[in-house]
Amino acid sequence: MTEAALRIGLVGTGRIGQVHAANIAADPATTLAWIADPYVAGARSVAERFGGRVTDSPEELLTSGQIDAVLIASPTPTHVDLIGRAVGLGLPVLCEKPIDLDIARVDALRPIVAAAGVPVALGFNRRFDPDFSSARDRVAAGEIGRLEQLTIISRDPAPPPAEYVGVSGGIFRDMTIHDFDMARFFLPEIVEVSASGSTVFDDGARQHGDFDTAITTLRTADGALITIINSRHSPTGYDQRIEAFGSAGLLTVANAPTSLVRLSTADAVEAAPPYQDFFLQRYAAAYAIELAEFVRLARGEQSSSPTFDDGRAALILADAAQRSAHQRIAVQVDLSA
Amino acid sequence: MTEAALRIGLVGTGRIGQVHAANIAADPATTLAWIADPYVAGARSVAERFGGRVTDSPEELLTSGQIDAVLIASPTPTHVDLIGRAVGLGLPVLCEKPIDLDIARVDALRPIVAAAGVPVALGFNRRFDPDFSSARDRVAAGEIGRLEQLTIISRDPAPPPAEYVGVSGGIFRDMTIHDFDMARFFLPEIVEVSASGSTVFDDGARQHGDFDTAITTLRTADGALITIINSRHSPTGYDQRIEAFGSAGLLTVANAPTSLVRLSTADAVEAAPPYQDFFLQRYAAAYAIELAEFVRLARGEQSSSPTFDDGRAALILADAAQRSAHQRIAVQVDLSA
Amino acid sequence: MTEAALRIGLVGTGRIGQVHAANIAADPATTLAWIADPYVAGARSVAERFGGRVTDSPEELLTSGQIDAVLIASPTPTHVDLIGRAVGLGLPVLCEKPIDLDIARVDALRPIVAAAGVPVALGFNRRFDPDFSSARDRVAAGEIGRLEQLTIISRDPAPPPAEYVGVSGGIFRDMTIHDFDMARFFLPEIVEVSASGSTVFDDGARQHGDFDTAITTLRTADGALITIINSRHSPTGYDQRIEAFGSAGLLTVANAPTSLVRLSTADAVEAAPPYQDFFLQRYAAAYAIELAEFVRLARGEQSSSPTFDDGRAALILADAAQRSAHQRIAVQVDLSA
Amino acid sequence: MTEAALRIGLVGTGRIGQVHAANIAADPATTLAWIADPYVAGARSVAERFGGRVTDSPEELLTSGQIDAVLIASPTPTHVDLIGRAVGLGLPVLCEKPIDLDIARVDALRPIVAAAGVPVALGFNRRFDPDFSSARDRVAAGEIGRLEQLTIISRDPAPPPAEYVGVSGGIFRDMTIHDFDMARFFLPEIVEVSASGSTVFDDGARQHGDFDTAITTLRTADGALITIINSRHSPTGYDQRIEAFGSAGLLTVANAPTSLVRLSTADAVEAAPPYQDFFLQRYAAAYAIELAEFVRLARGEQSSSPTFDDGRAALILADAAQRSAHQRIAVQVDLSA
Repeated sequence: MTEAALRIGLVGTGRIGQVHAANIAADPATTLAWIADPYVAGARSVAERFGGRVTDSPEELLTSGQIDAVLIASPTPTHVDLIGRAVGLGLPVLCEKPIDLDIARVDALRPIVAAAGVPVALGFNRRFDPDFSSARDRVAAGEIGRLEQLTIISRDPAPPPAEYVGVSGGIFRDMTIHDFDMARFFLPEIVEVSASGSTVFDDGARQHGDFDTAITTLRTADGALITIINSRHSPTGYDQRIEAFGSAGLLTVANAPTSLVRLSTADAVEAAPPYQDFFLQRYAAAYAIELAEFVRLARGEQSSSPTFDDGRAALILADAAQRSAHQRIAVQVDLSA
Repeated sequence: MTEAALRIGLVGTGRIGQVHAANIAADPATTLAWIADPYVAGARSVAERFGGRVTDSPEELLTSGQIDAVLIASPTPTHVDLIGRAVGLGLPVLCEKPIDLDIARVDALRPIVAAAGVPVALGFNRRFDPDFSSARDRVAAGEIGRLEQLTIISRDPAPPPAEYVGVSGGIFRDMTIHDFDMARFFLPEIVEVSASGSTVFDDGARQHGDFDTAITTLRTADGALITIINSRHSPTGYDQRIEAFGSAGLLTVANAPTSLVRLSTADAVEAAPPYQDFFLQRYAAAYAIELAEFVRLARGEQSSSPTFDDGRAALILADAAQRSAHQRIAVQVDLSA
Repeated sequence: MTEAALRIGLVGTGRIGQVHAANIAADPATTLAWIADPYVAGARSVAERFGGRVTDSPEELLTSGQIDAVLIASPTPTHVDLIGRAVGLGLPVLCEKPIDLDIARVDALRPIVAAAGVPVALGFNRRFDPDFSSARDRVAAGEIGRLEQLTIISRDPAPPPAEYVGVSGGIFRDMTIHDFDMARFFLPEIVEVSASGSTVFDDGARQHGDFDTAITTLRTADGALITIINSRHSPTGYDQRIEAFGSAGLLTVANAPTSLVRLSTADAVEAAPPYQDFFLQRYAAAYAIELAEFVRLARGEQSSSPTFDDGRAALILADAAQRSAHQRIAVQVDLSA
Repeated sequence: MTEAALRIGLVGTGRIGQVHAANIAADPATTLAWIADPYVAGARSVAERFGGRVTDSPEELLTSGQIDAVLIASPTPTHVDLIGRAVGLGLPVLCEKPIDLDIARVDALRPIVAAAGVPVALGFNRRFDPDFSSARDRVAAGEIGRLEQLTIISRDPAPPPAEYVGVSGGIFRDMTIHDFDMARFFLPEIVEVSASGSTVFDDGARQHGDFDTAITTLRTADGALITIINSRHSPTGYDQRIEAFGSAGLLTVANAPTSLVRLSTADAVEAAPPYQDFFLQRYAAAYAIELAEFVRLARGEQSSSPTFDDGRAALILADAAQRSAHQRIAVQVDLSA
């Protein structure tokens, strides 16, 4: 590849920022040019491992003139301002989900992004998981006929800390939002949301009036039904499965095993070790592919990166689920507006 | 066993009546004493294969003085009268589901049954499936801790004839009713029903204003959530699965394979022949065990037969689902009344 | 079927004789006409359950004039004389394996059987197992191209009593003989046998100079290689598997599960209950089909019953394996003579 | 880690040399210091990607004084001289298998290696496969009781070029040698070898008098039996499986899937994409762990690297298998000498 590497400015060096930093350093198509974090020690630690200049000021990074694109991995409340500023400077953006917890702020940003004409990608990493994307491509290719039902099982290994639950926006905006985007990855035209939430095991959720358990049903314009099954814990390891049921067959994506070894004894047979336990392990390949697709997007090439509007659609669905779960009604949505 | 065989009167000799006749004849604890069907040729054909006296009049059967118990496998609209008459005569009843499509008629019968003090069992055969009952027993034994989520996937191989759809009472009363009972088999205390229905492939359903596809979410008093995923067709064979998710693990019941043979080629590996395609094949063992449990019930022994009130509860849930699916609201139910 | 039922005389009422008696009684194409056992109480007990006249004399049964065919389930040393007598009387025979432990006696009987022109079937029941026969049919149909390697795993749940080991003829003639026939079911033209035996856990085997563990390699005329892996015990339940490896794919037959339920916890996932533990359970369907095919054979119809020469071939292979295991050489065999 | 990185000299830059070069560059504990290949363009190409000085002379590399250890990935006939020279210079060696095709040359080198007291590791990469090593550790930990039978299925995706077959030393020395080492990984004390070879599909093998299909049975001192099933092709992808059968259970290692997606249709259910097709993909993790263990060995730390004597033992078994396959006898071996 003779093209110069894309110089990326990384904002935020928490857990997910570090994953992106490592991928940027490992991908020959990108270099980690600048790193910004108000907690500057975090930025420095990342720079030591992966290179890049360090600042505590995202603004300095954005206006350095030394970056070709921005990757936003800072806390959610900073996303809207950073996206707005970056596109104003003509910098393509890859922003972690969600855009914001407040749809009004997202809607306010929307025309600005549209007017800027600069690509903004949302970090819905699961779209890039090789198994999920393969399943979706095979559905799209007609291997199971018309898609009639989609079942997404998505259970985290363990609930987040109580403090995090308090600022998370609730299970639908924080956790299910990934599943809303996955639903739209298979079936974009969603028109109705019905959700049921429950709080059965997590004190953090109880304390903050949130759910730890949820079932969401979505309906598409042409009558397909989607079920999302969530729990904030999973004793067997990260539970991430999809079943696509069509008029001609069923495509399933199983949990990711950690071993090819199975034990059979007089007590039980074919017992495997528990599933992968952590999202960074489960989606390691997805993050790298997500970056590669963003490079293509930033360069104006054909790209499968989810867009700002995909991010907005997921939030609209999350808001609708929240309302449905509390008011006990099905909520109609219009994602096409 | 020195006890005399239970003399059973069978009312109805359609497909399911014939299954019961064969099981009654095969079980040393029962004999097929009388067979009644207004279509008397059907009754005669059954008698030729399995013995028993024949009549076109259920009343003659009930009052013959030669039966110890009644098995009702006649059309749904006849159930209420037959049950009422049988218990009035002191005859224990095993009645195919549903009791009736109209909850008012069921409620009218209820005090009569209660007053008679004669056991009435409902034919929820799936409770007796060795795999489902094993899963339920293992949940009850605490193998997966507290049960938090139950997922029932239930898809028929192919839709019924359009004429049948018209008198079926709709997908929730006709098909999901089995799944409502299965949900209560694991988690009896259901308090809320949310259902979404869709009509995507079956002209019969469309013609009669019914759904061919449905998702139902149930909530229990202590916050467990149940999902029922239905379709009136399944291209891979009868799709009957359960996943019980608990605080300490997951118990799954897979589809029933038809073969132990798997083919691997350069195109695909580990491909198995399609699943069992027909409910009589899938639940053959269940029907025999159901009969054995009814014998115990009729004899006043400890029995796991589902009761009249189980049949009523399933109908209440079906009615609630129907209302929820049409009004797009969650419907509260009180099964304890 | 308007044809009269085949009247069968059963000789021997041990464990396997009782299985045959039940199948004869259950199959409308057969009736259990006579039952002979020197231990006449055994015969009587069978007759009480399944009908038939009783005698302690096989000769009385054979010459009764009231049977159309004979099923020989008596001890191995009686087989040769009974087969000879039956075919002399023009009675078709289904004889349990092996014909005899002494190939000289088998060879002496062979021309008598041939001259009699009466069909003799050998009880290699595994040929009728629906999964093994399906795998073999699919291999024959070319689904995996040319068959190059066949692997048969065959492990009994537990070793037989020490006394039985002493008269069994050794593991190759007693246990592997089933696998030799299975090998020939897929690949009849075997020309060489190499076997290794070991005694690692069974005192009965050690006491009688027998092996409890064995590996046998067979070669066919056109170079296919077959591996038979035997053990006299299996802690996970009866271990009966086949892998057919061809130029275009792999067909496998897995062990028979006892449940569709799988448990996943933090310790292990997808753990199933142990496999079927007993040959009568594992091969229940096979015995019934074996009988049906014998009926066809006895009636002169097209039948897949293994023949006297199949029984002889298996014994030749067992003798060769025994010699190979002791002399540590590969032994050439000629099954075509 | 404050310890300086181990400076490695790499000899040979073919396919496997390039894998090692990439791993050396990626592991912070090692640096690629020198690269030697008579085909100097190959060495240069590797240096451009991963660093290191280049020479066409292994001698220059060995005597540079700038390396701490040698990794030998050159053609087999060069191994003995390079190992001898390296240990003479006090340099720890990691050498690709086999040491040589001629046991006499290996035996001549053996006392030299022993006298030098410098660690020599053999590149039996499969020992480091996480699944195989986990299975072996669990067997060693007693999870399946006493190990009685070990079955190794090892089939390459496709046969090598005919020219390669001619210089490969034959299937046992070239391909099965990995399986001999794997057998010894589980059960080191092997005393007897019986092998059967066949040539059924590969013209290259036929042309050079080699086999393309082989079954080998090994016996240990205490009576365990090992079966190795080999083919030079596998239509479903690289077929690498192990079953360890013990007195208390069975541990299996399945083939490595390429996807978590399974397709079910009316034709077949649960069909997965083909297995991994290439050894570099299948054993990518193993090569990296192999290197890490070699670093420990070179540093005098506890290490699980297979030794020179492990390499010699595998060759002795291969020679015995070759002789057994041609002379049709079991061959006794003494690996303890």
